[in-house]
Amino acid sequence: MPKSNVSASVIRRLPRYYRFLRELADAGVERISSGDLARRMGLTASQIRQDLNCFGGFGQQGYGYNVRSLHEEVGHILGLGKHRKAILIGAGNLGRAIAQHMDFTSRGFELVGIFDANPELIGREIAGVPVQNIQALYDFCSRKVPTVAILCIPKEAAMKLARELVGMGIKGFWNFSHYDLALDFKGIVVENVHLGDSLSILCYHLGEMERNQP
Amino acid sequence: MPKSNVSASVIRRLPRYYRFLRELADAGVERISSGDLARRMGLTASQIRQDLNCFGGFGQQGYGYNVRSLHEEVGHILGLGKHRKAILIGAGNLGRAIAQHMDFTSRGFELVGIFDANPELIGREIAGVPVQNIQALYDFCSRKVPTVAILCIPKEAAMKLARELVGMGIKGFWNFSHYDLALDFKGIVVENVHLGDSLSILCYHLGEMERNQP
Repeated sequence: MPKSNVSASVIRRLPRYYRFLRELADAGVERISSGDLARRMGLTASQIRQDLNCFGGFGQQGYGYNVRSLHEEVGHILGLGKHRKAILIGAGNLGRAIAQHMDFTSRGFELVGIFDANPELIGREIAGVPVQNIQALYDFCSRKVPTVAILCIPKEAAMKLARELVGMGIKGFWNFSHYDLALDFKGIVVENVHLGDSLSILCYHLGEMERNQP
Repeated sequence: MPKSNVSASVIRRLPRYYRFLRELADAGVERISSGDLARRMGLTASQIRQDLNCFGGFGQQGYGYNVRSLHEEVGHILGLGKHRKAILIGAGNLGRAIAQHMDFTSRGFELVGIFDANPELIGREIAGVPVQNIQALYDFCSRKVPTVAILCIPKEAAMKLARELVGMGIKGFWNFSHYDLALDFKGIVVENVHLGDSLSILCYHLGEMERNQP
């Protein structure tokens, strides 16, 4: 089990370890040194050892890591085998893309419901899941008890609905709406995805590159 | 101008400052102390002062920040006024959602072209931009000289095409395909968006919360 004081930046790197180890395993690599893994991931060997030591450490000095078992361990630390129930709110462009594009199962979730207020979308199927009227949300949550809500709705709707969803038993949010949900709800887990922030950071780095060119 | 050694985590926070300052300005707030801004953003006052000092510092001791001018300054640091040309590759669900959902202009970009290999998509308009045949890419880049490519294509296609796009003069990638583009191309700016990683982190935090419950 992980220590309780693992830093946010270590946790942010875990899914990346998971991806790289999966690729190595798929490529038939059985063992890898922290140095070799570091080079592939653009990290340092000591950073990798430190990161993995937060969870007990899995390598043997001078022998490296067993790729397949480390991959499994990282997946276990992330809790990807749980398959918690998730609902998606907002079947617009972004919601549809998320529902169709994401492999929920391999990330620890099962998409059990999609909701929208738009009559034109209600009844359609997305990724095999029918879009339901948002008014059926309370009843659905009472029956199915989903753990997570994926918010693909505008900011104002998200601010209002998030509170109601917590009342309906939702414990975690994957929030694509343009505001920071985390600040309002203590004791509820939130992962905000700010695509606009990401694009702004690309903009910053392009400017930095231009300034540094001779 | 920013110092050249500003840490990645400070840069990652800049778009968030920008959003919060915009909201404060829209709400009519004229001045704000670092302490008040810190409380709203879930940071500490000293972290905010340190972050902004990386770019020269903008407050006056005991007087706080001018909201509107700090918002402008952060936007200027991010380079959001530039409107660099961007093309989007891959007009599937995710590509369509990105093209329609994002406000490129306010983030320093202009979406000038969309490309796909699927004959059913070619000729359609997304967010006012027609989808062109991917075979027209080289010619388009020669004429329009876009700076940035947004990759909404599978991993294998992205690995191959990214190299060609660099040859066509692309300087930056906003990469939604499932691999870390940054490692292959030195001197090219990459912002990877791993939605799967984000979902895995939510999964981790849900498990952590459950473990910590009495």
